[in-house]
Amino acid sequence: MNQQTSPPDTPITLENVSVDVVIFTLRSRDLQVCLVRRDCAPFKDDWALPGGGVRVDEPLERAALRILHAKTGVRDLYLQQLFTFGDPGRDPRRRVISVTYFALISSERIATNHLDGDSETVGWHSVYALPRLAFDHAEIIQYALVRLRNKIQYSAAAFELMPEEFTLRELHDAYMVILNDYTLDKANFRKKIREANILEPASGYRETGGRPARLYRFRRDAQPEIKARRFFP
Amino acid sequence: MNQQTSPPDTPITLENVSVDVVIFTLRSRDLQVCLVRRDCAPFKDDWALPGGGVRVDEPLERAALRILHAKTGVRDLYLQQLFTFGDPGRDPRRRVISVTYFALISSERIATNHLDGDSETVGWHSVYALPRLAFDHAEIIQYALVRLRNKIQYSAAAFELMPEEFTLRELHDAYMVILNDYTLDKANFRKKIREANILEPASGYRETGGRPARLYRFRRDAQPEIKARRFFP
Repeated sequence: MNQQTSPPDTPITLENVSVDVVIFTLRSRDLQVCLVRRDCAPFKDDWALPGGGVRVDEPLERAALRILHAKTGVRDLYLQQLFTFGDPGRDPRRRVISVTYFALISSERIATNHLDGDSETVGWHSVYALPRLAFDHAEIIQYALVRLRNKIQYSAAAFELMPEEFTLRELHDAYMVILNDYTLDKANFRKKIREANILEPASGYRETGGRPARLYRFRRDAQPEIKARRFFP
Repeated sequence: MNQQTSPPDTPITLENVSVDVVIFTLRSRDLQVCLVRRDCAPFKDDWALPGGGVRVDEPLERAALRILHAKTGVRDLYLQQLFTFGDPGRDPRRRVISVTYFALISSERIATNHLDGDSETVGWHSVYALPRLAFDHAEIIQYALVRLRNKIQYSAAAFELMPEEFTLRELHDAYMVILNDYTLDKANFRKKIREANILEPASGYRETGGRPARLYRFRRDAQPEIKARRFFP
């Protein structure tokens, strides 16, 4: 008998802590988030963020990565802690503190079976047309959306959502979709992109019906975040 | 007998969650943080951030405010969630997830008995000469310091550390202390402060030995944070 085995009443996961992950992707000119339909109470049949308990010996970020891999098939991606939600009433069963994470992934990296999923139980939903959500998950998604919109304005985070190669028009479309701002000026956008010096031409072109559009990719040696630009004092 | 009383084995605080607060103040031309000396194992006699358990019915932020009030005597102050630290080994006794908060307070607002404290058990320590710290609290303070330094560059957070009225020289000193950068150009600093349009003259002057220096205060209607200054794209 293995003396190292934990006593049978030792819990496998922490009692009062869970991890929930907001996974964003861009698909079909839409900003989408991965949701799972709940098959039991509370909030049976409502949709929820992928999440779960934290194992007793598992770092928080590793729990988030485990959940991410299960839902997208991807291991290596942009992941960041978002916020810890802990209102006493957020789960009707017991007090659960949710440490939330924020992930960005290009839809071309998501394995097909994870992307198509079984839309009855797991699927990608437009952040602009969300179904009914369990717990405080609507609030968590809203918070993540604000963070994403801020982030793409001072960092290259948006590139985490793009395919490996893209046209300037596709990048401009992505910014308009994420910011939900379809007035974003095209000429000014291209000027700022040029000034930021973060793109390099790829070898090919995209057929567009009209003049083929040059493909670009993110320069891997580019500064992904504009830091130390002190403007207050 | 009160039927509403919880059974005696119901815990008062959550099992796996604590709250720790990094409270910054400026004193004696130094950036200081409030620490408490531990009177029992583990890390007996080392210093730790003020913190403690979260009560079963208590929101996380209210727990942080409760701890802050106990250590500073102040109820209304700048408080923000910082980060949730959860490495399995961070507390040798059991798995504890620490939701950390970040607070800024002007030393003139701290009640004298809290400011002087009993330096044997609670006190204010320079972030540039910290004593030996328990748990991962050195890492938490370092993280908070980075956040503070970023924050004062795009927001008016530094004013939360200033007295109600101050001279431009005192404000310049504060920035140099927080950034730990004593080369910060005085003329350029004053120009940026003017451009930011966030100060208004107070009625008095400070005797300086030489020419009396005008006192300023933060304009309460000033924009405390520079938002929507999109510069990438």
